[in-house]
Amino acid sequence: MATRRKFIAGCSLALSSVLVSGRAFGIADPVLKKEGKGNKNSKHESLKLGVAGYSFLHFDVKESLAMMRRMEVHYLCIKDFHLPYDSTDEEINNFHKTLAESNVKGYAVGPIYTESKKEIEDAFEYAKRVGVDLIIGIPKPEDLPYVVEKCKEYDIRYAIHNHGPEDKVYPNATVIHDYIKNLDRRIGICFDMGHHTRDQQDPIKDVVRYKDRIFDMHFKNVTEASGKGTTCELSRGVIDIPAYMKALNKIKYEGVCSLEFEKDMKDPLAGISESVGYFKGVADCQNVEVL
Amino acid sequence: MATRRKFIAGCSLALSSVLVSGRAFGIADPVLKKEGKGNKNSKHESLKLGVAGYSFLHFDVKESLAMMRRMEVHYLCIKDFHLPYDSTDEEINNFHKTLAESNVKGYAVGPIYTESKKEIEDAFEYAKRVGVDLIIGIPKPEDLPYVVEKCKEYDIRYAIHNHGPEDKVYPNATVIHDYIKNLDRRIGICFDMGHHTRDQQDPIKDVVRYKDRIFDMHFKNVTEASGKGTTCELSRGVIDIPAYMKALNKIKYEGVCSLEFEKDMKDPLAGISESVGYFKGVADCQNVEVL
Repeated sequence: MATRRKFIAGCSLALSSVLVSGRAFGIADPVLKKEGKGNKNSKHESLKLGVAGYSFLHFDVKESLAMMRRMEVHYLCIKDFHLPYDSTDEEINNFHKTLAESNVKGYAVGPIYTESKKEIEDAFEYAKRVGVDLIIGIPKPEDLPYVVEKCKEYDIRYAIHNHGPEDKVYPNATVIHDYIKNLDRRIGICFDMGHHTRDQQDPIKDVVRYKDRIFDMHFKNVTEASGKGTTCELSRGVIDIPAYMKALNKIKYEGVCSLEFEKDMKDPLAGISESVGYFKGVADCQNVEVL
Repeated sequence: MATRRKFIAGCSLALSSVLVSGRAFGIADPVLKKEGKGNKNSKHESLKLGVAGYSFLHFDVKESLAMMRRMEVHYLCIKDFHLPYDSTDEEINNFHKTLAESNVKGYAVGPIYTESKKEIEDAFEYAKRVGVDLIIGIPKPEDLPYVVEKCKEYDIRYAIHNHGPEDKVYPNATVIHDYIKNLDRRIGICFDMGHHTRDQQDPIKDVVRYKDRIFDMHFKNVTEASGKGTTCELSRGVIDIPAYMKALNKIKYEGVCSLEFEKDMKDPLAGISESVGYFKGVADCQNVEVL
């Protein structure tokens, strides 16, 4: 635990000196660089804990970052209500600078729904300008060949998000995997473990099964393994989170565990904080460093 | 986890039908009674999670209970700013009723500082009227024989609180144990693991060493094992909480783990929630039911 504290103390220095342009892929990652984590020979495993931007639907960037500082969480998946698609380069630079001042890295953009090739093109152009190498998206299945084309053109990965039984296109990760398994390896899954469970699928088995294609994760628990289930704090749902996190260690998941908390959305800090605490408690028991 | 949820759902019914008078010792404990926990033959161990009233210094009963409901925490150590010493029996009854409506049990009173025999007498009379069998107190050492006398007279236990290096009388639990070890077994320790650590003592070794005399616990982490250390979220301090909780299971601690959060005291919900999550995460990993 001393190691983590040291990292947090050192992190603001590292970040303030990194001020990224936001133009190059792989925005400087002070967490990994600072402590030499991600080294497979390291004594500890590690997991990156983040927040999916949608959790902050009702909050601007400043308010959202205040919550992330309070929770000591360092990764944010960027939603357009925080950084609009038509942002100028200067606005993008300022956005990254603001995040960096709170020791936060915007590691991906989305989810972005697209209805046409033009919108897909725009999404990739936006991701390139934002400087991330990962888009979370919901494309029409017939557009998948075009998405793949863009993945190659931009060398940006694209993770399709599953949305549960109400979603007739991508209700679970298995459906997504069936679509993409023979496509370019830059196209994959943003595994929403809650919606996957709500569609009566097994998140622990399937996170292992689709490990090579899971680039991002909406980390949550749900009250029921059915369409009636809703998001809840990690400690209060039907998913066995310690077993799930053990599976993540087993597959050496390198993406972010991005908390998406669709509960108390106008006052989410207490619930997300409880989930952050739960995640860190399990991680400490499993000898896993939380980055 | 399903079991816990079921308990919570059932709990409000149980509680609303229990409306205690507040006069009898051992206020109905719906948690234990509902699920048959505390049974030593049970498959799981269990720990009671609570909040020390002092954490809610700046909040009235209604606000404090709103936080406890949100966190799903069911035990509260009663401070006099929530239930004044001169409360009438009716006020005491209403207080218990209000707590019960939030599935909360007021399980003890204090900490109560006493400077004279009269104040000790008042504290026991108050505890009797409140209907609890445990007082957390800070008596003058020369009054200990009188405290013991009252413990016997009222058959109420009395736990002395340690307050760290600044406390010249009871800086750590070892000092308290030395005072009480040969006294009646109804006098013991409210083990403040944070202050004990701040006094450069080992909380994990000592919670085992003094197990027979530890009746209550101020559960916290601290930023440093010195007088400079301050309370922090369970995940962020120098105490190895998983190891500490393993020790609690080993000694089959039957008291309450009462979170005392002396940080962000005017806005404590996020920090206490994070600690609650951490506690529950560790408990799930250790196969311990949180009551």
